[in-house]
Amino acid sequence: MSVQPFVLDPRLEAETSQIGELALCRVLLMDDARFPWLILVPKRPGLVEIIDLGSADLVRLMEEIATASGVLEAATSAFKLNVAALGNVVRQLHVHVIARFENDAAWPSPVWGKGERVSYEPVKRAEFSGKLRAGFGFG
Amino acid sequence: MSVQPFVLDPRLEAETSQIGELALCRVLLMDDARFPWLILVPKRPGLVEIIDLGSADLVRLMEEIATASGVLEAATSAFKLNVAALGNVVRQLHVHVIARFENDAAWPSPVWGKGERVSYEPVKRAEFSGKLRAGFGFG
Repeated sequence: MSVQPFVLDPRLEAETSQIGELALCRVLLMDDARFPWLILVPKRPGLVEIIDLGSADLVRLMEEIATASGVLEAATSAFKLNVAALGNVVRQLHVHVIARFENDAAWPSPVWGKGERVSYEPVKRAEFSGKLRAGFGFG
Repeated sequence: MSVQPFVLDPRLEAETSQIGELALCRVLLMDDARFPWLILVPKRPGLVEIIDLGSADLVRLMEEIATASGVLEAATSAFKLNVAALGNVVRQLHVHVIARFENDAAWPSPVWGKGERVSYEPVKRAEFSGKLRAGFGFG
């Protein structure tokens, strides 16, 4: 068998920008200025469910969820974090880590399917991405 | 300091029935016949976010999410699993593990806030709970 490469789902590619790479996951910023929103994508081909991960990667995923949660909380002073692996639309395994606020555009509902995505102004995206990269310790 | 006991949130208590206890989490069945839906609640007082867990409990939570996912998938032949820790309404840390189907009442949207909860008929609840308990290996 040939080794299948990891390829990011085209919809995730289109709606996010890359923040950096952890051991297991690529870290993406959802391009939605309404919600500070990271997406972790394990860099393994063919994954759909969390339970498709081997046991070492399962632990690594949880560690990286914790890392991303801490970075996002510190960068935003979030009121609440939402962490979710849904995958009903985009099948490739990915985990949302979203900072929520009591006055945000969807509170207290989940963010998915609420209104239309609002792209960041480029300056704001660059500024927030820089803050996140510093939080993760990405070079 | 006195040791604070773990007390299940009253809303979770009201809307679920208990399936059993894992090492870290109490396993609950959401009383909503529209979606096969487990809730894992770490039995530690005062938790709100996943990152409130210590590192050993973080790993344990991921293992128990994987266990619950496997049991639910086997019991329902789910098309997709949704796993999420939201907590915008109920603050006590809890993790949803939900079996989704392309013809379910909310597909492809997330289940939260979609229409009204439909209680199980008691016979159906007992039957499904028994199947889940067997899957978890609860006595």
